[in-house]
Amino acid sequence: MTMLVQKYGGSSLKNTARIVAVADRVAVAAKSGPLVVVVSAMGDTTDHLIDLARSVADRPDKREIDMLLATGEQVSASLLAMSLHQRGVSAISLAGWQAGIRTDSVFSTARIRSVDTERIRHELTAGKVVIVTGFQGVGDETGWGEVTTLGRGGSDATAVALAAGLGDCRCEIYSDVTGIFSADPRIVPEARKLSEITYEEMLELAQYGAQVMMPRSIELAQLWSVPLEVRSSYAAESGTRIGGTMEYGNRVAGVAHQTDVAKVTFVGLADRPGIAHTIFSALAKRRIHADLIVQNIGQHGRTDLSFTVAEGDLEAAMEVAEEIRGDVDAQAVTSKGGMAKVSVVGAGLSSSAEYASTMFGALAETGVNIDMISTSGIRLTCVIDGNRAEETVRSLHAAFHLGEDASWQASA
Amino acid sequence: MTMLVQKYGGSSLKNTARIVAVADRVAVAAKSGPLVVVVSAMGDTTDHLIDLARSVADRPDKREIDMLLATGEQVSASLLAMSLHQRGVSAISLAGWQAGIRTDSVFSTARIRSVDTERIRHELTAGKVVIVTGFQGVGDETGWGEVTTLGRGGSDATAVALAAGLGDCRCEIYSDVTGIFSADPRIVPEARKLSEITYEEMLELAQYGAQVMMPRSIELAQLWSVPLEVRSSYAAESGTRIGGTMEYGNRVAGVAHQTDVAKVTFVGLADRPGIAHTIFSALAKRRIHADLIVQNIGQHGRTDLSFTVAEGDLEAAMEVAEEIRGDVDAQAVTSKGGMAKVSVVGAGLSSSAEYASTMFGALAETGVNIDMISTSGIRLTCVIDGNRAEETVRSLHAAFHLGEDASWQASA
Repeated sequence: MTMLVQKYGGSSLKNTARIVAVADRVAVAAKSGPLVVVVSAMGDTTDHLIDLARSVADRPDKREIDMLLATGEQVSASLLAMSLHQRGVSAISLAGWQAGIRTDSVFSTARIRSVDTERIRHELTAGKVVIVTGFQGVGDETGWGEVTTLGRGGSDATAVALAAGLGDCRCEIYSDVTGIFSADPRIVPEARKLSEITYEEMLELAQYGAQVMMPRSIELAQLWSVPLEVRSSYAAESGTRIGGTMEYGNRVAGVAHQTDVAKVTFVGLADRPGIAHTIFSALAKRRIHADLIVQNIGQHGRTDLSFTVAEGDLEAAMEVAEEIRGDVDAQAVTSKGGMAKVSVVGAGLSSSAEYASTMFGALAETGVNIDMISTSGIRLTCVIDGNRAEETVRSLHAAFHLGEDASWQASA
Repeated sequence: MTMLVQKYGGSSLKNTARIVAVADRVAVAAKSGPLVVVVSAMGDTTDHLIDLARSVADRPDKREIDMLLATGEQVSASLLAMSLHQRGVSAISLAGWQAGIRTDSVFSTARIRSVDTERIRHELTAGKVVIVTGFQGVGDETGWGEVTTLGRGGSDATAVALAAGLGDCRCEIYSDVTGIFSADPRIVPEARKLSEITYEEMLELAQYGAQVMMPRSIELAQLWSVPLEVRSSYAAESGTRIGGTMEYGNRVAGVAHQTDVAKVTFVGLADRPGIAHTIFSALAKRRIHADLIVQNIGQHGRTDLSFTVAEGDLEAAMEVAEEIRGDVDAQAVTSKGGMAKVSVVGAGLSSSAEYASTMFGALAETGVNIDMISTSGIRLTCVIDGNRAEETVRSLHAAFHLGEDASWQASA
C-alpha cells in the first residue's frame, strides 16, 4: 500500500484554530492508509525565538540556536497529536531525534545524511498517525546526540527524506497557496494553476522566483523519485503534482520573476584563464551568491563579465569588486540596481528554437530593453528594468497563451 | 574537587533580563570549579503551553503533554547558554535525553530511575558549564526514547539527582526567597532566616506548609547525602543549608502552617480490624489525599476516626464517606471546613517533653481551641480554626523565641 507523507508549513499552523483545521484534514487522510505528517513551527514562533536569542546575545551560538528553534516544531507536533486524539484518531508525535532523522553536525544548516525509519514503521504498524517535527534532526558524528536544524526549507526536506526513506510513498506539501501557477496570480490575474509539472521545471521555477518550495527539496524528491503534490491547507481542491517524466511535449510551464536584483559588470577584463575563479571565489568568501553569470565574447584580449546578485548584497559585492579589480586587470567595474529577472520555463524549451523568438518578440513589442540573457536547457531568462517586470510577465504569459487550458506548444 | 549543581526556578528566569542576571551569577560560580546548572521553564511558559493544549483537546494525552512542556526548559537552557557565551564563558545546554536523565515511563509524573553522567562529565572536562533542562528526562522502558516530565518539583529533583549521580557534589536551589525561615515572614515580621537545618526538619516543614521545596527532592537529597542550600537569585546573601546531621541539640527550627484545611470525622465506628483500610482505600481510589489521621481510644466497641483533607477535596471526601458509611458501621459522619494546621518542627522535639507543654500553653493563652493533635518524632501539629491561624503562628514563634539569634532550646 502506498504510504503518504503530508507536510504542513507554518502558514497552515498559525494558531490553535488552524491546528484543529489541519487535524480535520489529517483525520480524513488517515482513513486511506499509513500516514506520516511533518509539521513546521506555528506561524511566527521561529521569529519570536530568534528575538529572544538576540536579546541575550549579539551573535548567538549556532548549536544553541538549534536547541532553541527545535522547540517550535515540538510544540506544533504535540498539539496536532492532541488534536487528533480529540477526534478519536490514534496519533503520536516524534521529535527529530526520535524519528531517526540523522544529519551532519553543521548546526543551523545541517544536511540529512540518512533516515532510520524503524520507529516510524513501528508506530505506523500500531495504527498510529505519526507526526514528525520538520526542520530538525539529530547529528551524531561526535558520538553524542546533538539537536540540529536544517536551515531554510528544512521542513520540506524532512518530508521528502521521510518519503524516500519509507519507500513507495507520496508526499504532499501544504501551504497557503493552492499550487504552482503559470505566473504569479497577484500580477497575472489569468494565471492558471498547473495540474502537473516536472521536477526540472519546478526546480527552474523555484530558482528563478517561485517561492512555494526550496530547490533543495525538489532536488531530493527528484533524486529519490518521490512524487510530490503542492496543495493548500485552506482549500479542498487538488494542487500541482510534481513528477518524474519529461514527456510533457514541448510545452512552456510558466513565467517566473524576481525583483530586487542588481547587476555587476567587470568591463574590459584581461581575457586569460583564472580570472573568473578569482572573482567568484572572492565573492564566495564573503558569502555573496552570484546567480546569473554572463561573459561576452572578448575583443582585443579584453572581455566583459556580468553577474547578478540580490539588491541587498550589492554594496558588499562592489566592495569585493573594487578590492580585486587590480588583480583581474579590469578597466572598470560598473553596477546597476533595481533590475528584475524574468524567466520562461518549460520542458519544451529544450526542443524548439521558437520559444526564444516568441520571448524576445514579446519583449520588443512591449519596448522593454534586455540587459542580460541567460539560458538553461528548459529556461530562458532576461534581466530587465525592475519597473517593467510586471508588465513583462503579463506580456510573456499572454504570448505563450499560458492562461489557456492546454499550455502553449511550439509548432516545431 | 567538589562539584556544584545550581538550580534556577521559573521565578529566577521570568524574562530574558532575568536570564542575563542569572548568567552573571553563573559566570562567577564557574570560576570556582566544575558547574552544572539546572533550569526550569521561564516564568509562566508552562501555564501558557497548558493553555495551548487545552485549546485543542479536552483531556490532552499525557505523553503529548510531556512532549509539549519539555520545550519550556529547552528554551531557557539554550538562552542561558547563549547568555554565558556572550560573557565569554564556555557553556553547553543539554536536554533531558542528552543529559542521561533516565526515568520510568509514567508520563507527567515520571520518576528518575538513574542518571548516566557520561556526557555531562565529558563536557565538564572540556571546561564547559553544563546547562541541563530540569523537570524532564527520557523514558526508555519500551526500547524507544520517550520524553517524560517529572511532575511538581521536578526541576529540584533533577538537580538533586544530578548531584547524587556526579558524587562529591553540592546543590544550590535558587528561587525568589532567600532561604528557610522560622515562620512565614509575611505573617511573622520578626521571623529569622535559618542558616542551617536538617533534612528531617526540612521535610516536615515542607510537608506542613513551607513551599520552598517539594518533599520529594528533600528525601532524595537525604537518601544520597547531597548537601543542599536554598538561596535567592535576586540577592547576594547566603541562604539556608540543608544537611545531614541531627546534632543540632534540642532546638526548634520553625513554625509551619497550612490553611484551607477541612476535617472529616467518622463518629461511633465499629472498632474492628479492616475499618481504616476500607475508609482510606475508598479515598485513595478517588485520589483524595488524607494527611492527618487521628483515631481516639474507643469505648463500648465504638471509636471516632478523624482526618484532614484540602478544603477543595471536602465535597468529594464527604461523598465517599456517605457511600461507605454503612460498610464501616458508623453512627454519623461530620465535617468542618475553614480549619488550619499549625506545626512546630525541630530535631529537639524528639528529646524533650517540654515542647508540647510550651506549644499547648501558648495556644491556651491565646484562647485557641485545639481540634486535633498529631505528632511525629520532630513535629507537633495542631488543627485549629483557620481564622486564628496567623495569630497562633505569631504566638508560637514568640513562645519558642524563634526570632532570637540562637534558636530556643529546652532546658531538659
